[in-house]
Amino acid sequence: MSINVGIAGLGVVAQGLLELSSTNADQLSGITGNPLCVTRVASRRLRDEVALGTIAFSTDLEDLVKDDDLDFVIELIGGTDAAYNLIKACLSRGRGVITANKAVLATHGNELLAIARDRDVPLAFEAAVAGGIPIIAALKTRFPANNIKWLTGIINGTCNYILTAMSDEGVAFEDALRRAQELGYAEADPTFDVGGMDAAQKLAILVALAFNVPIAIDEVYCEGIQDITIDDIRHADEFGYSIKHLAIGRQDDDVIEMRVHPALVPKDNLLAKVNDVENAVQLGTTNTGVLRFTGPGAGGHATASSVIADLTNIASGLYRQPGIGGNALKPRSISDVSSAFFLSIAATDRPGVIASIGEVLASHSISIASMVQKQEEVVRSADTSVIPVVILTNTVVERELNKSLQELESLDDIASPIKKIRVVDLA
Amino acid sequence: MSINVGIAGLGVVAQGLLELSSTNADQLSGITGNPLCVTRVASRRLRDEVALGTIAFSTDLEDLVKDDDLDFVIELIGGTDAAYNLIKACLSRGRGVITANKAVLATHGNELLAIARDRDVPLAFEAAVAGGIPIIAALKTRFPANNIKWLTGIINGTCNYILTAMSDEGVAFEDALRRAQELGYAEADPTFDVGGMDAAQKLAILVALAFNVPIAIDEVYCEGIQDITIDDIRHADEFGYSIKHLAIGRQDDDVIEMRVHPALVPKDNLLAKVNDVENAVQLGTTNTGVLRFTGPGAGGHATASSVIADLTNIASGLYRQPGIGGNALKPRSISDVSSAFFLSIAATDRPGVIASIGEVLASHSISIASMVQKQEEVVRSADTSVIPVVILTNTVVERELNKSLQELESLDDIASPIKKIRVVDLA
Repeated sequence: MSINVGIAGLGVVAQGLLELSSTNADQLSGITGNPLCVTRVASRRLRDEVALGTIAFSTDLEDLVKDDDLDFVIELIGGTDAAYNLIKACLSRGRGVITANKAVLATHGNELLAIARDRDVPLAFEAAVAGGIPIIAALKTRFPANNIKWLTGIINGTCNYILTAMSDEGVAFEDALRRAQELGYAEADPTFDVGGMDAAQKLAILVALAFNVPIAIDEVYCEGIQDITIDDIRHADEFGYSIKHLAIGRQDDDVIEMRVHPALVPKDNLLAKVNDVENAVQLGTTNTGVLRFTGPGAGGHATASSVIADLTNIASGLYRQPGIGGNALKPRSISDVSSAFFLSIAATDRPGVIASIGEVLASHSISIASMVQKQEEVVRSADTSVIPVVILTNTVVERELNKSLQELESLDDIASPIKKIRVVDLA
Repeated sequence: MSINVGIAGLGVVAQGLLELSSTNADQLSGITGNPLCVTRVASRRLRDEVALGTIAFSTDLEDLVKDDDLDFVIELIGGTDAAYNLIKACLSRGRGVITANKAVLATHGNELLAIARDRDVPLAFEAAVAGGIPIIAALKTRFPANNIKWLTGIINGTCNYILTAMSDEGVAFEDALRRAQELGYAEADPTFDVGGMDAAQKLAILVALAFNVPIAIDEVYCEGIQDITIDDIRHADEFGYSIKHLAIGRQDDDVIEMRVHPALVPKDNLLAKVNDVENAVQLGTTNTGVLRFTGPGAGGHATASSVIADLTNIASGLYRQPGIGGNALKPRSISDVSSAFFLSIAATDRPGVIASIGEVLASHSISIASMVQKQEEVVRSADTSVIPVVILTNTVVERELNKSLQELESLDDIASPIKKIRVVDLA
């Protein structure tokens, strides 16, 4: 008896899945005990380049729900509404689902996972976060004593590609973005990736698994990389840091921090060396030190590989529905997060301006770890010269830092807004 | 009804296990559905510092076999014979076993895993390789399409600690070893670790899982780090490489390479940055690019954590007996392996000696990627001066290189033996 699989979507991951499940058919049926057969595909449109052979095709996702010969449905259409309806309908009929869709999990995951649990039907999603890296499996099965204290990740390949290009080749954000688009690493509308929402959705999922709390996308603080300049990268480099777009989750007693933003990472940290579209996740644990995983975050074959692993495991009974939401989520506001900060201030090149910056920071009990006036970068105009002042602060609560920045920005000699980038010490 | 667990051994891992299973008792029984209770410990001697409470204790391992109230036995005594007898007896009685013992798996693993399969009884061993890194679980469950082409690892913490100390602080091998012993990172008799056997045993296990072949410890080429000098490390550094003790497995059509030896690793490779007692495993795959895992390779809590994860998974039915030995193992002799080589030659400081080295290598079609005469390191004596000549070759089959070295060593002006270290390009 074959294991019948339906696929929603016919894009690059679905095509990878059709290819890999066919070329590895013997191997897979050796594990599951029965042949895995894709018997139905539903997608908005048929693609001439994909040979479906005897596989039933329709443009109606509902056909994947109605077809009771299907044992599992693999959801690869992305987006939220249609995917949500499909997954919910399949689960409710007792049909297991595998999805690569972080958006639907970030927005409807609590409900869908509860249905899966109630109905005792698997809902698997390794491919939804960090593509080929088996981080979901690790979080679900390797930390039963739940000793994770924090996690940090580079989980958006588009941002990482752009920041790497800016850093290695000195190209501006816009140029790096254009190249990412040409290479297929960024969408035509790149907002979702470069604005950080993609990483925020993935972080919400990781945090839910790591700390056994509900998925809470609305509680994730989210900042993108659009405002990072080559100067920022160069100045950070001079302080011994790389700028990376990080996703950070941390549990501190019963309070949980979730934030996605550009961050200064010490150059000798592994994350600083994860480049281009590669992804990485680091777990800080009580009992097993720091564990680091790196690998491809996307790509048809890598993602399809994760889906096939989920499918094979489920089909052979090797699956545990993740427990999430067992603990209440008390989010920490970004204003209450403590970090060191990188500040880039455009100040009038006038005696006393540095002293007044120091005074304002000191009046908020913020001490300066390093400060550099970039004399060679003075911008002169008719009546004034503006000099960049670059500062690394010691650790301070963000609320307090913000007060000091407001005060600084109100000074005549300082341009508004002041650029601030958090420094990350979880490593 | 509780899940009753017996432990063989009462060392640091067993103590970690007792502590973690007790402090996380609620969490663990939440996953397994029943409380996990350690009810019996057998060890050569009782330790006063360990409070066993109501746990039965004896010095006879056989008691762990006879006690039919035990659901699982955790083997933490190490070594081969006693562990083999214990595991075999337990499995044969249908009792699941979790072991942290690479030695018993490397020498008796094929038989023990076959018994486990035949009897449908779990034999789990995440903790046996790379302590806290969930690499066994990944190999067992995340690559059903079995697309692993090669794996490289730093899987012996003692060697990595010693090489890191030699490299970072310029201390000699003997001094680094002594410090490792003082810190508890090396045994009183360190041969097993620094000679490479520990890494060889772990590699045999990883390769069996990665390529579905039998465990074949006798086919692993094994070299330790005893002959690595600070000069080697410094010269490699000047060429842009670190020296690490690596375990390498590679499948090339149906031939499999298994080797453990010091190797030059390009400094920008992740492995070059894995320092001290940290472990790392890299997987080169067809469909998911290169995956990298790093974390603690040893330590009571890290190892105990892996054991608890195995135990919890097995006790909740989340376990698949690994398929190994499905494919025949055709080993590749080290003489047939191709690599680039680092050569360190002590040559008489005399006109023409460099030319003759070049000629001999050329006559074996070995081309030189870099060659440096370390003029500042000339060792002068009454009638001769000896100069170190350091060479990086291009890729060559080792058999051919060995012939050229024999020829070089027969020359009057060249000291014997010539130091050779392989350069690794799998990354």
